[in-house]
Amino acid sequence: MNHPYALTSALKRPLPDALAERLRARFGDRFSTALAVREHHGRDESPFPVTPPDAVVFAESTEDVVEAVLACREHRFPIIPFGVGSSLEGHLLAVQGGLTIDVSRMNRVLEIAGEDLLCTVQAGVTRKQLNAEIKDTGLFFPVDPGADASLGGMAATRASGTTTVRYGTMRENVLALTVVTAEGKVIRTGTRARKSSAGYDLTRLFVGSEGTLGIVTEVTLRLYPVPEAMTAAVCHFPTLADAVAAVIETIQLGVPVARCDFVDDVMIRAINAHSKTTLPEAPTVFFEFHGSTASAREQAETVQEVSRTHGGRDFEWADRPEDRTRLWNARHNAYFAALQIRPGCRAVTTDTCVPISRLAESIEGARAILDRAPCPTAIVGHVGDGNFHAILLIDPENPAEIELAEQLNDEIVRLALSMGGTCTGEHGIGLHKIGYLVEEAGDDAVDLMRRIKLALDPDGIMNPGKIFRA
Amino acid sequence: MNHPYALTSALKRPLPDALAERLRARFGDRFSTALAVREHHGRDESPFPVTPPDAVVFAESTEDVVEAVLACREHRFPIIPFGVGSSLEGHLLAVQGGLTIDVSRMNRVLEIAGEDLLCTVQAGVTRKQLNAEIKDTGLFFPVDPGADASLGGMAATRASGTTTVRYGTMRENVLALTVVTAEGKVIRTGTRARKSSAGYDLTRLFVGSEGTLGIVTEVTLRLYPVPEAMTAAVCHFPTLADAVAAVIETIQLGVPVARCDFVDDVMIRAINAHSKTTLPEAPTVFFEFHGSTASAREQAETVQEVSRTHGGRDFEWADRPEDRTRLWNARHNAYFAALQIRPGCRAVTTDTCVPISRLAESIEGARAILDRAPCPTAIVGHVGDGNFHAILLIDPENPAEIELAEQLNDEIVRLALSMGGTCTGEHGIGLHKIGYLVEEAGDDAVDLMRRIKLALDPDGIMNPGKIFRA
Repeated sequence: MNHPYALTSALKRPLPDALAERLRARFGDRFSTALAVREHHGRDESPFPVTPPDAVVFAESTEDVVEAVLACREHRFPIIPFGVGSSLEGHLLAVQGGLTIDVSRMNRVLEIAGEDLLCTVQAGVTRKQLNAEIKDTGLFFPVDPGADASLGGMAATRASGTTTVRYGTMRENVLALTVVTAEGKVIRTGTRARKSSAGYDLTRLFVGSEGTLGIVTEVTLRLYPVPEAMTAAVCHFPTLADAVAAVIETIQLGVPVARCDFVDDVMIRAINAHSKTTLPEAPTVFFEFHGSTASAREQAETVQEVSRTHGGRDFEWADRPEDRTRLWNARHNAYFAALQIRPGCRAVTTDTCVPISRLAESIEGARAILDRAPCPTAIVGHVGDGNFHAILLIDPENPAEIELAEQLNDEIVRLALSMGGTCTGEHGIGLHKIGYLVEEAGDDAVDLMRRIKLALDPDGIMNPGKIFRA
Repeated sequence: MNHPYALTSALKRPLPDALAERLRARFGDRFSTALAVREHHGRDESPFPVTPPDAVVFAESTEDVVEAVLACREHRFPIIPFGVGSSLEGHLLAVQGGLTIDVSRMNRVLEIAGEDLLCTVQAGVTRKQLNAEIKDTGLFFPVDPGADASLGGMAATRASGTTTVRYGTMRENVLALTVVTAEGKVIRTGTRARKSSAGYDLTRLFVGSEGTLGIVTEVTLRLYPVPEAMTAAVCHFPTLADAVAAVIETIQLGVPVARCDFVDDVMIRAINAHSKTTLPEAPTVFFEFHGSTASAREQAETVQEVSRTHGGRDFEWADRPEDRTRLWNARHNAYFAALQIRPGCRAVTTDTCVPISRLAESIEGARAILDRAPCPTAIVGHVGDGNFHAILLIDPENPAEIELAEQLNDEIVRLALSMGGTCTGEHGIGLHKIGYLVEEAGDDAVDLMRRIKLALDPDGIMNPGKIFRA
């Protein structure tokens, strides 16, 4: 049988000599065709096999990106943007070959406008780097997908994460972008104003476009005043259903929780092993409350009360920063903890998001489906948004196991779609969910997306093979 | 001299007989070419002269809209969607003639999913109607542009208003749309999930597209739990600069104010005359605080303290719903109060939005520009967002006065653009700001918008002459 993740490359053609010469002349040793460099740029956190590009350019400025795009355009050669390689759906894989433009050296915070609660960064700045650089301003950037992703990549995949329930996703937090178009033009989407009704929302069009319409080189982001008080709490529940019920009630009451994440018992066991914690191995919800001292306390008390009515026990508080960090680090390391359950494994990760009223049913349905898995599985999720991840720890060398895992993945996605949900809450379409996008949005809506792609990238050189089937 | 608002119509051609026949056969007396009906659909709240369409269809369903679009498409005949006619930038005016599709009879709330904090309405439902219909659910829809606009129209112009500082604009509050495309296909953008990374963000593309890409027929909106406490307050300041400084500090402190609107002394005088109130005729800020009882009180106290340090006086509270409504009604009626300053006048209204650090400078600059006006002027604004409106009350029969008013408008817009702001915070481009869109976004960005327009509406029949010059 064919390997389930074998990537077709019928459209792949070799790097034209003239293009290589032009790029080498322009970029010197910032242009590379070395196998190790190409392989590093041909893998992400998805279970797909390494699929390297033909060459890599390390861009240091928007002008570098323009030059690389103009060169590739002349040869109709594919272009793939690369931040830190933390995507989960094969976004970076060179399925038709191509030139990877690595923006990780574009790592300068260009401006911090504290009075305007905004900043502008180059696309390669990571979220942790940004928060470290602004920590003396009394401001922070809240979007937190777990991985220390680049902010350009987070914009490109419309990332979100643990704090979305309060602060929104990249959609709400990107004010403006600098983008290099498929024709090598530099455009600025949006202004420094907080809102605008000026024409089509190009910012929101590029946010989530996965590198298929242009390359994000600078990102203007909203910042928020660090709240006077931040309190973390963790609570254990008798069953998955109880935990989810407590979260649903919290959201429906309108409590402005800042974070609200679910972790199942399997994952807690992995976290304990990985992070040397001693959390009870039960369905668990991690909370965080932001506000004035009184308001954060009041939120926490309301949630504690709600949790108690659903059998929640051991509501553990953490007011001090170091305790809060310890609690949430355990949650943040869950993905890497899970990978250690089975040495050598890769993770197939679902990413469905459903309306909150269907959340319990959706997670319990996923659990029942996962019980048929041929490999270890776990569930974690940003349940305050209706978003959760089933993680299947597959042996990447075992095609039969992969096929079964993908079949279970498929059942979980279909369950979410049947409930009015989406196939991807925050990871994007990439290579993995091209078919589901059509099922979810319908042929006519995907046809509009394809027309937009064709209008903005007439030669089809921007990250081809992603979002749409080539 | 030519009338400054004379609308060119070189592209206008008569309603084809065959099209009229087809529409009459399909819609019976819901199709009209009566002058009174056409004139009613040929004006909005802008100062442009009445510019009627050739005919009007009153749609009662998405299928009606499809039929009307298919008929017009066959004849390459322009289509203009119409809600309640409250737009401010000439969006509804039939500058190339055409068929107006009036969706005001599509006024059913289709679903209230309280558990999911969402609802779906037909495009003709107004925001007040929605809030009246859901008032027993404990939920409300916050976006409030002042006028009782249709929710389809609010989506189409990316409307916002007094509560945006806390709850966001239509961009953040539309979860999904049903849209009839220029080819008469029905698409659904988005799901019932709160967030998604599935492909291009068609929802955000149609929000703010002003009827130029398709016709919104159904809107799925986020709802919010009615807060336990809602407190209104009003505070008077010695000068405009003091009032704005208090607002800026409130925002920078991160106080989650629910509303925060500025009204200048001229406007207060008009409000007093119109609403029989006795507010001191001074620069005034209206606030509203939402939250638990303790949290709303705490917010109000913080803001009172901040206001005091900027010379704020007579901080008047209103906890009881009737007092709160009375206070805010005064603010809500400001626009109509202003029109009564000068009987028979029309309003030229600016709509700039600047980064919050430039707000004081921007409003004071606008005030200095307005001091040269040949007509009464006032300033009001959603200053928590950096958005404000200068209102020039012109004599619509006096071309010289109109020209000067437009020149001052132009200076105010250029001032905002020079500060990194936008020419329109919430009213849209329409007919009035086509040139400013190019100045603000740049030729290359507007070129991408045009390509999207061409890709989605190849025959150019959807509300032609708006956003882009024909």
